[in-house]
Amino acid sequence: MKKRNPQLNKNGELIHLLSTEGLPREILTQILDTAGNFVSLGDREVKKVPLLRGKSVFNLFFENSTRTRTTFEIAAKRLSADVFNLDIARSSTAKGESLLDTIANLSAMAADIFVVRHGESGAPYLIAQHVAPHVHVVNAGDGRHAHPTQGLLDMYTIRHYKKDFTNLSVAIVGDVLHSRVARSDIHALTTLGCPDLRVVGPRTLVPAEFADMGVRVCHTLEEGIKDADVVITLRLQNERMSGALLPSSHEYFKSFGVTPERMQWAKPDAIVMHPGPINRGVEIDSSVVDGGQSVVLPQVTFGIAVRMAVMGIVAGNMA
Amino acid sequence: MKKRNPQLNKNGELIHLLSTEGLPREILTQILDTAGNFVSLGDREVKKVPLLRGKSVFNLFFENSTRTRTTFEIAAKRLSADVFNLDIARSSTAKGESLLDTIANLSAMAADIFVVRHGESGAPYLIAQHVAPHVHVVNAGDGRHAHPTQGLLDMYTIRHYKKDFTNLSVAIVGDVLHSRVARSDIHALTTLGCPDLRVVGPRTLVPAEFADMGVRVCHTLEEGIKDADVVITLRLQNERMSGALLPSSHEYFKSFGVTPERMQWAKPDAIVMHPGPINRGVEIDSSVVDGGQSVVLPQVTFGIAVRMAVMGIVAGNMA
Amino acid sequence: MKKRNPQLNKNGELIHLLSTEGLPREILTQILDTAGNFVSLGDREVKKVPLLRGKSVFNLFFENSTRTRTTFEIAAKRLSADVFNLDIARSSTAKGESLLDTIANLSAMAADIFVVRHGESGAPYLIAQHVAPHVHVVNAGDGRHAHPTQGLLDMYTIRHYKKDFTNLSVAIVGDVLHSRVARSDIHALTTLGCPDLRVVGPRTLVPAEFADMGVRVCHTLEEGIKDADVVITLRLQNERMSGALLPSSHEYFKSFGVTPERMQWAKPDAIVMHPGPINRGVEIDSSVVDGGQSVVLPQVTFGIAVRMAVMGIVAGNMA
Repeated sequence: MKKRNPQLNKNGELIHLLSTEGLPREILTQILDTAGNFVSLGDREVKKVPLLRGKSVFNLFFENSTRTRTTFEIAAKRLSADVFNLDIARSSTAKGESLLDTIANLSAMAADIFVVRHGESGAPYLIAQHVAPHVHVVNAGDGRHAHPTQGLLDMYTIRHYKKDFTNLSVAIVGDVLHSRVARSDIHALTTLGCPDLRVVGPRTLVPAEFADMGVRVCHTLEEGIKDADVVITLRLQNERMSGALLPSSHEYFKSFGVTPERMQWAKPDAIVMHPGPINRGVEIDSSVVDGGQSVVLPQVTFGIAVRMAVMGIVAGNMA
Repeated sequence: MKKRNPQLNKNGELIHLLSTEGLPREILTQILDTAGNFVSLGDREVKKVPLLRGKSVFNLFFENSTRTRTTFEIAAKRLSADVFNLDIARSSTAKGESLLDTIANLSAMAADIFVVRHGESGAPYLIAQHVAPHVHVVNAGDGRHAHPTQGLLDMYTIRHYKKDFTNLSVAIVGDVLHSRVARSDIHALTTLGCPDLRVVGPRTLVPAEFADMGVRVCHTLEEGIKDADVVITLRLQNERMSGALLPSSHEYFKSFGVTPERMQWAKPDAIVMHPGPINRGVEIDSSVVDGGQSVVLPQVTFGIAVRMAVMGIVAGNMA
Repeated sequence: MKKRNPQLNKNGELIHLLSTEGLPREILTQILDTAGNFVSLGDREVKKVPLLRGKSVFNLFFENSTRTRTTFEIAAKRLSADVFNLDIARSSTAKGESLLDTIANLSAMAADIFVVRHGESGAPYLIAQHVAPHVHVVNAGDGRHAHPTQGLLDMYTIRHYKKDFTNLSVAIVGDVLHSRVARSDIHALTTLGCPDLRVVGPRTLVPAEFADMGVRVCHTLEEGIKDADVVITLRLQNERMSGALLPSSHEYFKSFGVTPERMQWAKPDAIVMHPGPINRGVEIDSSVVDGGQSVVLPQVTFGIAVRMAVMGIVAGNMA
């Protein structure tokens, strides 16, 4: 007997967003289509819709991320929800209360959506298993595991510029090993039918095992982005930049930094993406970030719309 | 000549909530009745009422408490107020400004309600004495003195499950000495006509002087909860768990921890309450928290409604 | 060729508020007149207008100031805007992202107004130069340079009590050298036609070079506030109170502290102002703060209205 996907109810509707892994293509497409309706909202005089009016969205960031929290806060407020930012590091968990007791308490305050960021992979799953049927969980990044809204905004961006996934070559360049963004992108691209997906970087950051996910592992940038339609660059975390995994950020840039010259290996109309925040001159050259192929800022704009879509969809479905 | 109760205006209407002590039974009942109207709101599609639309609620937490602050924030937003959380520890008081200057400044910004948490007993009284007639003060916990909204939500919970106070036996178990919750409960229960109220714990935490408040002091759990209708367990603060007042949390649990076996001393339909956050296995056994007699999570839900009621009532009355 | 004022669009309309310096008298008067309409709002049952409904105001406080941030948050919410407080010290700038990348990212989230506080003089100008045409920047204090909304609320206060600027004597007393408030006041008062403006304090805090700004430099309090209509006292920063610039706060008070006796040098109907937070007994005596000539608390009230006016005006104009 197959275990039911915890993200879907028995009608196959999205009730939690925990990972892009295991989400059917129709759900991914529903999110992207819904986001499309919200993108145009940003240009309107009044940027709000009443979809979540009177609903309560709790930002539970066990791991600090002002930027991601803010994008969810903006998205929720544009849907007319009330948003509560919990400074969870200073709250009752610090007084020895368990994660599940904290969640049970917040649920009893009539929460509708928990947006959860947590250092431990799987924490949002644990929470989703224990919330009442009217409560929805959106994963805003858990350990190395998943960052599904980032993955979905990447899909929205690719579809916006390239229309169709089924004839694309996509390269993900950088610290794939430690990147929840890369994992979320790989699962979504695979489901959406991307036929040629490469992960690119040194052996320490892109081990051969990634081939098991159905992607091509490349250890030179030239091989990795050759004729690519889309080049997704990843942030190199400061803590990797010296020591065992990498000799230095300078060495990394010499081999894998995305420069205007190297971008000529990709297709002429290739787009360059980055989840931010960017280390200019480490994983990517400044002139590429600011150049004509960069879609880094549209990614941010689309990210608000995608998060609105996810929250709007899950809030409409019951467990 | 009797000094006027600072919580009431000359018509006897509630203008500040500082303590359950000295509040007439009619005011307590008005708050519980009003809260009852708001409890059902949590089940509605849109959980908001426009009672405080355009009003400004300032959360002034001189002592940090994310949980309590959040419950007030939720309550205020459900009443459609604008809520301002002041990180008071980092603000002008840190620059040497006096408490009363800070309050005068915030009042000049056209505040309507101050929700005050302060480490010093009496600070909310001092503030209430100095605010303009249109400003209302709600005590969210001051020193060991009072935590009146917690006391009122406890009353709401007891009335919800037991209907009438005038034939109840209620036991408050634990660190009564240091508990503002216990004090607020005792005053409210006494005013509401509870005929049999016991405080239960070791002599270091429940000194004989409590008898002066008209309650029975019990130094064994069996005596304390014998035939009780309601068992209110208190959180044991970590700082009490070793040293002069208690040998250890383990020793405490052996004598006063509320377990399923010991709950058999109470009435079969007794309810168990706790203000949270809970130390499972210290003041109460996990199986009691999660068992059928526990009303811990309903307390949280009722707490939102009680805070809405308090803010709605005081905002409607002038000094 | 004259460089265009970065605060104005080509039609001469206010698009950013960066400094009172260089603003034409008509713009200053437009802000004060608009604020006048908002002052009365504070007495109404519902203190909100829908002018910025659906717009997003981002508080970017690179330098912490709970009080100033709160006044902008109140002003924005009274205009029905959505407000986002970015804990910028903990955000991506801390991860090595540049200021302009942070700004570009937030702009891509469809921000409408950035309220910027920054320790470096000129930071709001840099930001204003790089934002999209639909985004407006309001300086909430940059280094020693400017604090234009404080300057404007001071102008509003003076006009409220004294009606006309063209026959006034105004004294600014204290640490003029390090005060962005003093600079903003001087520029605004000069443009509004104040004929007699004095800066008053010891040589270390009020150097002779201030005469270049067209003000009279006075090194005794008697000379400085003699026959003044308005006495603006400045906060003495704690870090100046000992060491090279001042022997001690006690010595300062002996020479320049504003007391009831010394206020007799000024006109009998002179008003006393202070930007807060006040050091009672250092730059000003408590009895003056609380006395009949003090307009310190009305300044706070007017400050909300002035900030509403500024945000309302800039949001209505395109670059």
